[in-house]
Amino acid sequence: MDKEINVAKIWPESDGLDPTDWEQFRKHARQMLEASIDQLQQAAERPWQPVPETVKDGYAVTAAGQSAGQVVERITREVLPYHGGNIHPRFWGWVQGTGLASDLIAGMAASVVNANGGGRDHGANYMERAVIDWTRRKMGMPEGASGVLTAGTSQATVIAFQVARVRRVPDVRKTGQGGIGLTAYAAEGIHNATRKALELLGVGADNLRLVPQQNGQMDLDALRAQIVSDRDEGAQPFLLVGMAGSVDLGRYDDLNGLADLAEAEDLWLHVDGAFGAWTRIADAPWRDLSDGIGRADSIALDFHKWMYVGYDCGLVLIADEAAHRAAFAARPAYLEAAERGLAGGDPWFCDYGIDLSRGNRALKVWTALEMYGEAALGAAISHNCRLAALMATEVAARPDMQMAAPIVSNVCVFTARADLTPEVQSVLNSEIAQSLQESGEAVFSTTRIDGVVMLRAAITNHRSRALDIQQGIAAVARLAQRA
Amino acid sequence: MDKEINVAKIWPESDGLDPTDWEQFRKHARQMLEASIDQLQQAAERPWQPVPETVKDGYAVTAAGQSAGQVVERITREVLPYHGGNIHPRFWGWVQGTGLASDLIAGMAASVVNANGGGRDHGANYMERAVIDWTRRKMGMPEGASGVLTAGTSQATVIAFQVARVRRVPDVRKTGQGGIGLTAYAAEGIHNATRKALELLGVGADNLRLVPQQNGQMDLDALRAQIVSDRDEGAQPFLLVGMAGSVDLGRYDDLNGLADLAEAEDLWLHVDGAFGAWTRIADAPWRDLSDGIGRADSIALDFHKWMYVGYDCGLVLIADEAAHRAAFAARPAYLEAAERGLAGGDPWFCDYGIDLSRGNRALKVWTALEMYGEAALGAAISHNCRLAALMATEVAARPDMQMAAPIVSNVCVFTARADLTPEVQSVLNSEIAQSLQESGEAVFSTTRIDGVVMLRAAITNHRSRALDIQQGIAAVARLAQRA
Repeated sequence: MDKEINVAKIWPESDGLDPTDWEQFRKHARQMLEASIDQLQQAAERPWQPVPETVKDGYAVTAAGQSAGQVVERITREVLPYHGGNIHPRFWGWVQGTGLASDLIAGMAASVVNANGGGRDHGANYMERAVIDWTRRKMGMPEGASGVLTAGTSQATVIAFQVARVRRVPDVRKTGQGGIGLTAYAAEGIHNATRKALELLGVGADNLRLVPQQNGQMDLDALRAQIVSDRDEGAQPFLLVGMAGSVDLGRYDDLNGLADLAEAEDLWLHVDGAFGAWTRIADAPWRDLSDGIGRADSIALDFHKWMYVGYDCGLVLIADEAAHRAAFAARPAYLEAAERGLAGGDPWFCDYGIDLSRGNRALKVWTALEMYGEAALGAAISHNCRLAALMATEVAARPDMQMAAPIVSNVCVFTARADLTPEVQSVLNSEIAQSLQESGEAVFSTTRIDGVVMLRAAITNHRSRALDIQQGIAAVARLAQRA
Repeated sequence: MDKEINVAKIWPESDGLDPTDWEQFRKHARQMLEASIDQLQQAAERPWQPVPETVKDGYAVTAAGQSAGQVVERITREVLPYHGGNIHPRFWGWVQGTGLASDLIAGMAASVVNANGGGRDHGANYMERAVIDWTRRKMGMPEGASGVLTAGTSQATVIAFQVARVRRVPDVRKTGQGGIGLTAYAAEGIHNATRKALELLGVGADNLRLVPQQNGQMDLDALRAQIVSDRDEGAQPFLLVGMAGSVDLGRYDDLNGLADLAEAEDLWLHVDGAFGAWTRIADAPWRDLSDGIGRADSIALDFHKWMYVGYDCGLVLIADEAAHRAAFAARPAYLEAAERGLAGGDPWFCDYGIDLSRGNRALKVWTALEMYGEAALGAAISHNCRLAALMATEVAARPDMQMAAPIVSNVCVFTARADLTPEVQSVLNSEIAQSLQESGEAVFSTTRIDGVVMLRAAITNHRSRALDIQQGIAAVARLAQRA
């Protein structure tokens, strides 16, 4: 006892960082909760709006120390209103999910569990395995496949490609790739994540062969010819990347055809299913698009897009767990596993990817799956595809408008005035997108199809209704007529 | 109007995923909030415990659909109790932060903002810039330096090394590294993140030279000699990695010495400051350890360790923004920026790293900085260092115990019984770590020092008090005497 008193004198206690008045903290946290639910409940009345300069300036870190009440007040006033628009029912820009009310519940719990999912023996890791296993089954990958949650498909792609490379060049972790000329193959229109991953790994983007498409799918004859020609020149083809939902037009490669060819040519088949993989739980016409996806060696997909879960959460699935571990497993002395206690648990997710420190992404996915269920999530995905078809109908009903291509899944790309020159169309479509964003009426993004900037709606929004689609196209038509 | 009615018939509305009864949802969300605050308030009574098999089984995804109330009940009963131990005041295992009450507030707001921080013009991105800029100033990096929040130091290291490589081999994104033999340098004892990053990039771990230490710091003469010898053999030295807080013993390289040498030898200087960088805001004796860190070309650090912020959140800072962009910037047509509207905003963080989809990590850091302030956070860091010194005093006071090395910062490594053989010590120390984890008394991790498994306390815990340290060492002593 004496000793404790002496020590307290010698080693002064810090004030610590926990609230000194818990009841006061509860009061302010409750205010934050009510404001947060208001945001969800009023999402339709809260479209995107530009961040005022005074608000931007107000974000400057003062690090002065304020009460929880002051901070809650500032967040309510300066943070909640300046979201990225994707919570609104008429947001179809890029491919961004809407978020779910379940995220709020999971977010509270995750904050106070504060799990590091890199390893060790605790709940978050078991839950992550459960989420991965459910997804594996839905994708039709074999039992024994492995996976790891990531920020998104970009990172999942990096992990998958490294696994593919290590399988082809087993010494690459030790020696580097050196002079070995590896080549990869994907259809024109592949998402930039594939190119960026090859750059990062040091494979080089020039070694990505863009294969022409036929009827919106990779031309397998052209692919075969390219492989032969590369082999003739001494390259080592190692990776074939299929698209399940192309970023521009929502198209799908013939995944069974790619799987057959990958087998015959001894290539690693990776499928970029960022959003499109999820037609696996949709109704038949759309589900069929992703047939064969389970035959891939690896799949990258997101929960934060078409499963609507809050940002960020992606997943890489690898059919061969041994190959996955061979590319990433490594445990120095300070991370040795124990048979018992907190250092137990096996496997550790740090052996399956880049990150040793990893937040708790599994909980929000699990909460969404348990709260809404597969049937409701699948229905929302099917409904989004129906809305894309409805949007195409609305476009077709207007003589000046024109679709870039028929609807395949949930992406609708069109020009507001096909009767103008390509240059004038490009300016007009860009202008329309920006004006509707600023007015808060609707968010379309743009993309270039055959050199023309067009309006693009990627519908991964569970809040959108038929009326929203009609209003959105009517707003485009109104602005187009002014041109 | 007629048209709308027809369309509603043709395109049946989904039930949607928002709550049908918002008052009911509020009720259940409030239950989750109270249970979450209870978890924080009672952290001292909730040590780590193993996850029961029935709970593990219960995590299996049913995807059946349940009410929010049922899900909240399950999370409260099956998720909150099975955290990773790091919320407890006597957790010193590995280098894991404690989490903060502010995370709960930020977590709620982040859930309903649902920001994708990859780009575009919205609040989260402005806030991220504010957080990066504050950190840049604290680290003493020049104005104009750039950065991007990541999951943690592992990913930050990958980004930094790729920037370093692209600076040395400008064509590497296009052509790959090819036959160019790049070599990197770090002291023995460098964190495994450095090795894993070099593996991932295809540089190869064999091309990491481990430089001997002298007095716990990289031996600069040995480093110079190694560089000369590598150049003689045709290699291209490109990267020098300094340690600000070594993972095993909390040691710091002579960062000014490294900066001088990197300049003279034209090497990229990267500093791994995962936890140790934060002595920059601590009291003088510890602050001095990280002197010179601002002279680095890149720094990787975490907020979720010694800034106590919830998992996950790391940061990479790059002194030369143009070099940073040269390694990662890429914008295909569907991501083209606009002058106005939501597609405006500049820069976009997707041009500074791997991820195109990125959650909102900035808000929890900002909330912590604004709520606690730099002074309180710095005091907590200084206090952790004092507690490590106290632990060493407690160890020294027991004749059988022995420190592996003197305390430098916040890491204390010791053996419980120096009087036994190395083999028996190793078994005993492992056994003690596991037993104390299981009893809930304290969490030490283990590491190997000169072949002996030792107990390791890395104190990055704002809940720890002097009495916790005394109780922890007393518990070790009790078990050690039984051996």
